[in-house]
Amino acid sequence: MEHRVSLITLGVADIPRARAFYQQLGWEGQETQETVFIQAGGMALVLWGRDKLARDCGIADDQPSGFSGVVLAHNVRSDAEVDQVVAAAEGAGATVTKAPARTFYGGYAGYFMDLDGHVWEIAYNPGFPLAEDGSITIPDFSKA
Amino acid sequence: MEHRVSLITLGVADIPRARAFYQQLGWEGQETQETVFIQAGGMALVLWGRDKLARDCGIADDQPSGFSGVVLAHNVRSDAEVDQVVAAAEGAGATVTKAPARTFYGGYAGYFMDLDGHVWEIAYNPGFPLAEDGSITIPDFSKA
Repeated sequence: MEHRVSLITLGVADIPRARAFYQQLGWEGQETQETVFIQAGGMALVLWGRDKLARDCGIADDQPSGFSGVVLAHNVRSDAEVDQVVAAAEGAGATVTKAPARTFYGGYAGYFMDLDGHVWEIAYNPGFPLAEDGSITIPDFSKA
Repeated sequence: MEHRVSLITLGVADIPRARAFYQQLGWEGQETQETVFIQAGGMALVLWGRDKLARDCGIADDQPSGFSGVVLAHNVRSDAEVDQVVAAAEGAGATVTKAPARTFYGGYAGYFMDLDGHVWEIAYNPGFPLAEDGSITIPDFSKA
């Protein structure tokens, strides 16, 4: 496998509600066949009905859904930007699960759950510089 | 928010086991502080202890973990490549939840769960062309 992820699909209960939430945060996408595709760099974030997603995967969705075990991080360029994004998410109805605070790696980050329980970390990590286009490069830890 | 995801972190029960699984599929990363970072285009896939991830997020991980509601798709360039990757994943211990088959959108795809229940779709979608570097561009559906 080449090192890349093409799509991240988030199963949601209500497409218009989920789409409106992400729009409030500036994520504009295209909707087709009750699916929202949002271009994000060289990949796409997709919102699709959770029931359809489970069925398509061949997985029963019959247990209580607690922590998904998956976290999407959106890295930004300053502490202030972390505060702004987390506040905007909360304003759009997200649940802040960890208010922005200093991290063990010398950065600053907060976490929220979207309306369907999907978890986002908003982080400023001075050790993982962002390129002009927002892409991130993991440093060579052997040289750290 | 700019349209981008910086990191996808998968919570796992056993870091060496998870790392070995992804290595078998060709995903080589760097490990530091019991965390594996795998560069993937302009973002990174991260493997981290599920317990630490939940604690870091401020989320209790005290319910049975069924379907996560999140699917990562890895798009490839042919039906044959779908078959190859799904077979390789199964060989590395993944559970194939849907054997590769034709899809409603005219492509070909299969799904598997990794050793920690994280779901991957391996897909050939002729409607979503892959660039040379593997990046994907969502077509303009209004022109379809």
